[in-house]
Amino acid sequence: MGTSPAVGGSPAKEQQAAGVGILLQIMMLVLSFVLGHVLRRHKFYYLPEASASLLIGLIVGGLANISDTETSIRAWFNFHEEFFFLFLLPPIIFQSGFSLSPKPFFSNFGAIVTFAILGTFIASVVTGVLVYIGGRMYLMYGLPFIECLMFGALISATDPVTVLSIFQELGTDVNLYALVFGESVLNDAMAISLYRTTSLVRNHASGQNFFMVIVRFLETFVGSMSAGVGVGFVSALLFKYAGLDVDNLQNLECCLFVLFPYFSYMLAEGISLSGIVSILFTAIVMKHYTYSNLSGNSQRFASAFFHLISSLAETFTFIYMGFDIAMEKHSWSHVGFIFFSILFIVVARAANVFSCAYLVNLFRPVQRQIPLNHQKALWYSGLRGAMAFALALQSVHDLPEGHGQIIFTATTTIIVLSVLLIGGSTGTMLEALQVVGDGHDGHLGESFEASNGYAVPSYNEDGPSGNRFKMKLKEFHKRTSSFSALDKNYLTPFFTSQNEDGDDEEDDEPMPSSRRGGFYGQ
Amino acid sequence: MGTSPAVGGSPAKEQQAAGVGILLQIMMLVLSFVLGHVLRRHKFYYLPEASASLLIGLIVGGLANISDTETSIRAWFNFHEEFFFLFLLPPIIFQSGFSLSPKPFFSNFGAIVTFAILGTFIASVVTGVLVYIGGRMYLMYGLPFIECLMFGALISATDPVTVLSIFQELGTDVNLYALVFGESVLNDAMAISLYRTTSLVRNHASGQNFFMVIVRFLETFVGSMSAGVGVGFVSALLFKYAGLDVDNLQNLECCLFVLFPYFSYMLAEGISLSGIVSILFTAIVMKHYTYSNLSGNSQRFASAFFHLISSLAETFTFIYMGFDIAMEKHSWSHVGFIFFSILFIVVARAANVFSCAYLVNLFRPVQRQIPLNHQKALWYSGLRGAMAFALALQSVHDLPEGHGQIIFTATTTIIVLSVLLIGGSTGTMLEALQVVGDGHDGHLGESFEASNGYAVPSYNEDGPSGNRFKMKLKEFHKRTSSFSALDKNYLTPFFTSQNEDGDDEEDDEPMPSSRRGGFYGQ
Repeated sequence: MGTSPAVGGSPAKEQQAAGVGILLQIMMLVLSFVLGHVLRRHKFYYLPEASASLLIGLIVGGLANISDTETSIRAWFNFHEEFFFLFLLPPIIFQSGFSLSPKPFFSNFGAIVTFAILGTFIASVVTGVLVYIGGRMYLMYGLPFIECLMFGALISATDPVTVLSIFQELGTDVNLYALVFGESVLNDAMAISLYRTTSLVRNHASGQNFFMVIVRFLETFVGSMSAGVGVGFVSALLFKYAGLDVDNLQNLECCLFVLFPYFSYMLAEGISLSGIVSILFTAIVMKHYTYSNLSGNSQRFASAFFHLISSLAETFTFIYMGFDIAMEKHSWSHVGFIFFSILFIVVARAANVFSCAYLVNLFRPVQRQIPLNHQKALWYSGLRGAMAFALALQSVHDLPEGHGQIIFTATTTIIVLSVLLIGGSTGTMLEALQVVGDGHDGHLGESFEASNGYAVPSYNEDGPSGNRFKMKLKEFHKRTSSFSALDKNYLTPFFTSQNEDGDDEEDDEPMPSSRRGGFYGQ
Repeated sequence: MGTSPAVGGSPAKEQQAAGVGILLQIMMLVLSFVLGHVLRRHKFYYLPEASASLLIGLIVGGLANISDTETSIRAWFNFHEEFFFLFLLPPIIFQSGFSLSPKPFFSNFGAIVTFAILGTFIASVVTGVLVYIGGRMYLMYGLPFIECLMFGALISATDPVTVLSIFQELGTDVNLYALVFGESVLNDAMAISLYRTTSLVRNHASGQNFFMVIVRFLETFVGSMSAGVGVGFVSALLFKYAGLDVDNLQNLECCLFVLFPYFSYMLAEGISLSGIVSILFTAIVMKHYTYSNLSGNSQRFASAFFHLISSLAETFTFIYMGFDIAMEKHSWSHVGFIFFSILFIVVARAANVFSCAYLVNLFRPVQRQIPLNHQKALWYSGLRGAMAFALALQSVHDLPEGHGQIIFTATTTIIVLSVLLIGGSTGTMLEALQVVGDGHDGHLGESFEASNGYAVPSYNEDGPSGNRFKMKLKEFHKRTSSFSALDKNYLTPFFTSQNEDGDDEEDDEPMPSSRRGGFYGQ
């Protein structure tokens, strides 16, 4: 490896190994970006960027496994859950929230929360029970019931990255996009909570029941949301009054702006709340209020910065995962377990999506019902990614020798298969289900008004209502519209300084404010 | 700390501790930025931002030491040399090179290399010998000779951050700035090489002499420089031919651009060269060639991005150092050692600067001599920072119990005193020595033509020359001017796509190209 004389002893050696490790990672990153770009350019949707990154990681990891790589270099490729949770996940989630068009998200908020909380709970329990029954019927390796539930919880975390990038590329229906996006972000939080709680129950065998799990999750959710919104509002006020939007303070302005999301995430983690949920709401609030208090240059910079950081984090996560999957020891002796758990999570996902959609549709007027093709798309798009992987890696430490390994191997297989198969066929699926939107140019926000319209509440509906559900729905709409009024009359003037030129996102302008100046790439 | 119920077992606890640790770090960062901004706004130069950050770190670290902080949170504040070398140092050095005006740097290149290589060598040996003699005369704790040399090497690494930020703020002479900047960046590389070589000699007691050290350093230096320049050229060609400068590929373009400097650093480290030297030259080449192949938006973004990242890294380094100094165990029993080593490094710095300046002036024509006030300023501005700290921390592991502690305590004391005293008085010193430039607005590049002019080679000098030195000098000038011609006629057309609008840096335009569009803050 070294062509020059080896200056230095042990710390220098270590640093050299680190250099080689990071060098390899950078080269894989560059390769992924270039490959992803070439594939996208040729409109080859069967191998999205995430799948390509995962494959590159798998291949390079496999080569490193065969060759006699030094362990000190290998150490740089072990997937550290902590690194993932603290450094890779926050920028990805922040960018999701920051680039979100808030209108379809909030008009589908009830449905999203239903899918994320009730749906994930259903999916976890169904998976856990089926795996347990499968074990008792000698179809597969039999795990204790509580471990089955842990597996159910960790495998129920769906990953937004791959599917959403294809959704964006193809320009799908905004409401479907909002559902898939919202569900996958919030269900990560639910899955973590469920996993940790079942893990706690396993360790202490205390008398906590699943009702408590829900209550605790709701507590965590509301707490995290409040923390996130609070941090967002503080940032809005800071940038409104600090007077940093003059030209020569741009660097200071950007430094502070960039630190806030991270602050929100760490604050929530520090007080045992969910960092993901918190940073998501900080992102929404910061985009809506703080962003317009920045100078024009800083606005363009911040958009590009978060986009860049999240692209790097996303791509790196898949490479990192692929490499680790290729390097870790797997227990392939339980192929039955893998096969049946794949079957069971497909069933559990169906139970989750179709029952929750039925429930949501009960509360919605006819023109806002979630159509069956959207339900099918939602069911199909539940691929598993880095969150399930990180939790499975944790379960190897948490569970007695062997059991964690089985769960880990099953999870990695499911992840690789779902990323490659579902990721590769999402484009075909979306076209088959005819949910590809009008705007094929990849920007969802623009096709919002032109969409099939079930997100836009029509307040003057006078159809055959009269039952209790419809009454409640109307109330909800009133509350929604009163929130809009509150926002327009109080929040926006209070938290932003540029209220005279209106707020682009609340107006019906087709172009979101972040794209002024054409700085929003790709 | 926790207001919500503690969900989770041990991994969750660890993650919570990490959250609290990072939260504290972010809060200190924000505080440093705000404090630094307020102080700068009131033109209070006695406490520069770096000193303020160091103080904040010291104070918070002291408080954490008194209070009963959990060790898992404390672990987030231990200064890891690896983290510093791999993640904090690269962006700082890259930004130095990227924001550098190449003209004064290259016209003083001979002097800079003399100060960095010969000067650092002189300073190390003088310090080492004096400390050894002091030990033998019972003035201070007596260390073995080789350990004295290790101390001499690590304490000879001067820090660019604080002094240069004040230089920029006050707008000092460009040549002095180039000398101080160039010396402090390159002498870090020399100091690391010297430290590692002496450490190797100590461990193996092999017959390596100091001539070998110099040869090895030169090998490393030339190798690293070539690697850096090579990576820079590759990036220039990539961006020239990849056709990424269209609007919707901006994110891809930025991702790749951002990865190259890191690639250069890790490549050099991976093959046992100096990452610092390599990334510095990559920065210079990328600014000169690659940068002009980017689209306008990406140019503005890249400038702001590197500025942001390096500000964060710089400020964080000082906080991190302050916190660690407050938390580490020190051996205060050897106050004599500290006192005399301060005295000795002042002497050694004088031996370095004045002898090298004498040598450089021998080779320079009268109008390009380094004036005495510049020499004094150079002598004064040799404050010690993070590099010395990182190496001292390494010496605690490298040396037998006790000796490393003494060196570490002496080094931290010297760092704290020099950052606070020299950092605080640099403004006064610069004014007293009358080396403050014309442009008080903080942009050095602009006052280049208006400076005292010793950097601009006057080719038509016909003074009392005729001796060998002058002949050589003329040859050197010819080579320099032929490099300019080479650059203009071959390199720039080959590596950039925009040769029709000329190259801003090589023309005599006062405004560097990076500032087009006014995106370069502060």
